[in-house]
Amino acid sequence: MGDMSGRVFNFSAGPAALPEAVLRQAQRDIFNIADSGIGIMEHSHRGKVFDRITDETEALCREVGSVPDSHKIFWMMGGATSQCYMVPANLLGDGQTADYFNTGKWAGDSIREVPLYGGLHICASSEPTNHDRIPAPGDVRYSDRPVYVQFTSNNTIVGTEWRGEPEGIPDGSFLVCDASSNIYSRPIDIGRYGLIYAGAQKNLGPSGITLLIAREDVLGISPRKLPEMVHYKNHADWVGRFNTPNTFGVYLMGEVFRWILAEGGLGAMAEKNEAKSKVVYDFLDSQDFYTPHAREGSRSRMNITFRCPTGALDTVFTQEAEKAGLCNLAGHRMIKGMRASMYNAFPIEGAHALVGFMKSFAHEHASAARA
Amino acid sequence: MGDMSGRVFNFSAGPAALPEAVLRQAQRDIFNIADSGIGIMEHSHRGKVFDRITDETEALCREVGSVPDSHKIFWMMGGATSQCYMVPANLLGDGQTADYFNTGKWAGDSIREVPLYGGLHICASSEPTNHDRIPAPGDVRYSDRPVYVQFTSNNTIVGTEWRGEPEGIPDGSFLVCDASSNIYSRPIDIGRYGLIYAGAQKNLGPSGITLLIAREDVLGISPRKLPEMVHYKNHADWVGRFNTPNTFGVYLMGEVFRWILAEGGLGAMAEKNEAKSKVVYDFLDSQDFYTPHAREGSRSRMNITFRCPTGALDTVFTQEAEKAGLCNLAGHRMIKGMRASMYNAFPIEGAHALVGFMKSFAHEHASAARA
Repeated sequence: MGDMSGRVFNFSAGPAALPEAVLRQAQRDIFNIADSGIGIMEHSHRGKVFDRITDETEALCREVGSVPDSHKIFWMMGGATSQCYMVPANLLGDGQTADYFNTGKWAGDSIREVPLYGGLHICASSEPTNHDRIPAPGDVRYSDRPVYVQFTSNNTIVGTEWRGEPEGIPDGSFLVCDASSNIYSRPIDIGRYGLIYAGAQKNLGPSGITLLIAREDVLGISPRKLPEMVHYKNHADWVGRFNTPNTFGVYLMGEVFRWILAEGGLGAMAEKNEAKSKVVYDFLDSQDFYTPHAREGSRSRMNITFRCPTGALDTVFTQEAEKAGLCNLAGHRMIKGMRASMYNAFPIEGAHALVGFMKSFAHEHASAARA
Repeated sequence: MGDMSGRVFNFSAGPAALPEAVLRQAQRDIFNIADSGIGIMEHSHRGKVFDRITDETEALCREVGSVPDSHKIFWMMGGATSQCYMVPANLLGDGQTADYFNTGKWAGDSIREVPLYGGLHICASSEPTNHDRIPAPGDVRYSDRPVYVQFTSNNTIVGTEWRGEPEGIPDGSFLVCDASSNIYSRPIDIGRYGLIYAGAQKNLGPSGITLLIAREDVLGISPRKLPEMVHYKNHADWVGRFNTPNTFGVYLMGEVFRWILAEGGLGAMAEKNEAKSKVVYDFLDSQDFYTPHAREGSRSRMNITFRCPTGALDTVFTQEAEKAGLCNLAGHRMIKGMRASMYNAFPIEGAHALVGFMKSFAHEHASAARA
């Protein structure tokens, strides 16, 4: 299975499949980029070639996401996990409060760091139902004057996704969003966000680089003395070059943006992602061998979670799928079962192949499951 | 100039030249590594292929550097610059003091962060002579009971390098070393260090990954509540996988270690680096057109700094050198002039080519300089 070059269908939740055209370009550029006689990883982060790459990656990011002039684009290292503390460190003062949606592990990791810096209020939580849904508007209780309201737009592990943004946040507060696993998978109105960030390794590039897009006034509100490397403003002012960045990551993210544009932009990405996930969800809704984890209305287009009738069958499923060239389908250890991650670069052929495999597997094991 | 594949001599101070054999291997592995049907950047950081890469990179790092069992090996993101605050955040308590050698910009960046966490004592400084030398033992005054003594083993910008480690540090303290620009360029006794760290982009791999080697008892002394991502112990316990690491960086660092071993290990690296720098220093000492910046006895084998009789000639030099395929020779903006960086992967042919160019340039411009 896979294509003629020996590649398989890679359902990894991240680091995840990248566009093959981007990988082919990178093969050339790591030895000699732009006829410079020097590979992309060997160029100074302050030299002309990398100046151009930085400018292009920023411009492409702005074009792809229709990022308004009010917002700065930059990147940092340390993964989205580092943003768990950098967000409150930069934005929240002693005696101030931030509101957080608790919708899964990544939300939880962020929530854990807030008390180091200020007050925490959980405005809604899906924990009682094992994070199988996005909180309904009626279940949300904001605090009186939060500085910001933080949410995770897609929950990679459980496979839930916001359809839009939280509504009705208190006046004077702004939205902060961890969009690591669905950024640039569809058009969004960046103007509605104070800060949106994403680890690159799902829709944007390799691991080791985090994209941040922030409204300029938000960058200036740091309430305390912080190490220079923790200050958002330093990184924003230098467009990610306050210190030596992950230069290869900046380059590759730029190539992915270029690929998104060539494919038709975020509108085209949204259509393809909708179509891919519909192939699998339609099948899941048509049968009763597999049980989906996420509730209808909260289902992620990026990560589809489901399980077999027994845990033993889950194991057999992932093993046999692997042999058939459908790789990395094991669910996260927190909820087990299976997880099919299909980000921008994942082809629809893989979704059809998965459903084909699911059908035969169910057919083959239906009697065993009933026994 | 350069080799038949169109590559030039790249004197970049970092990100810097990588071994061509490693780049060739990476070209293959980014599309499909180990016949997995998946490229190295697309593999889950918790999957079998990356498990093996993590294990191998760690084992190769230990073998290359003869790292004793007392020391843990791991990696982080954020560059060596993030270590400026992470070192005192992890190791220094309120009311405790750390001693720092002030030998250049990177030392200065570290020194700046210390007061956020504890007491700072400058045990020696080369600032009065524009950092043209490593402090002599007689000029060092340690504080009474420092927790640790920090030094920068090679100063990339000014081109000075320690021959060994600082001697006679107070009982009970340990050495912390920023070895970003000369790690694994020669054998050192890692057992003498409490903590040694290095950004990878000079001798070890691409930018965006920092290697840390720490004595196990040092990792446990964190004196305060820190964000989880700042705690050394988390990263050490997970061998760099506490969160999603720069997976491509881990892979490439492993390939560089493999290349170092194939070339004969750190002994062979030391000989080659000594020979390369001797080619240029011998020439510098034989003429009076160019003025070297670093004093004899403190000269770096990695970064050779010198200048022409005038600043205008410096500019002409770097421009004409670039046309001749000798690239990235402009000195750092802090000291200007020229800087020839020749890390492990830089070939001795480049050192000879540089001296050849320096000779003709001096010959051509000698009268202009006298005028």
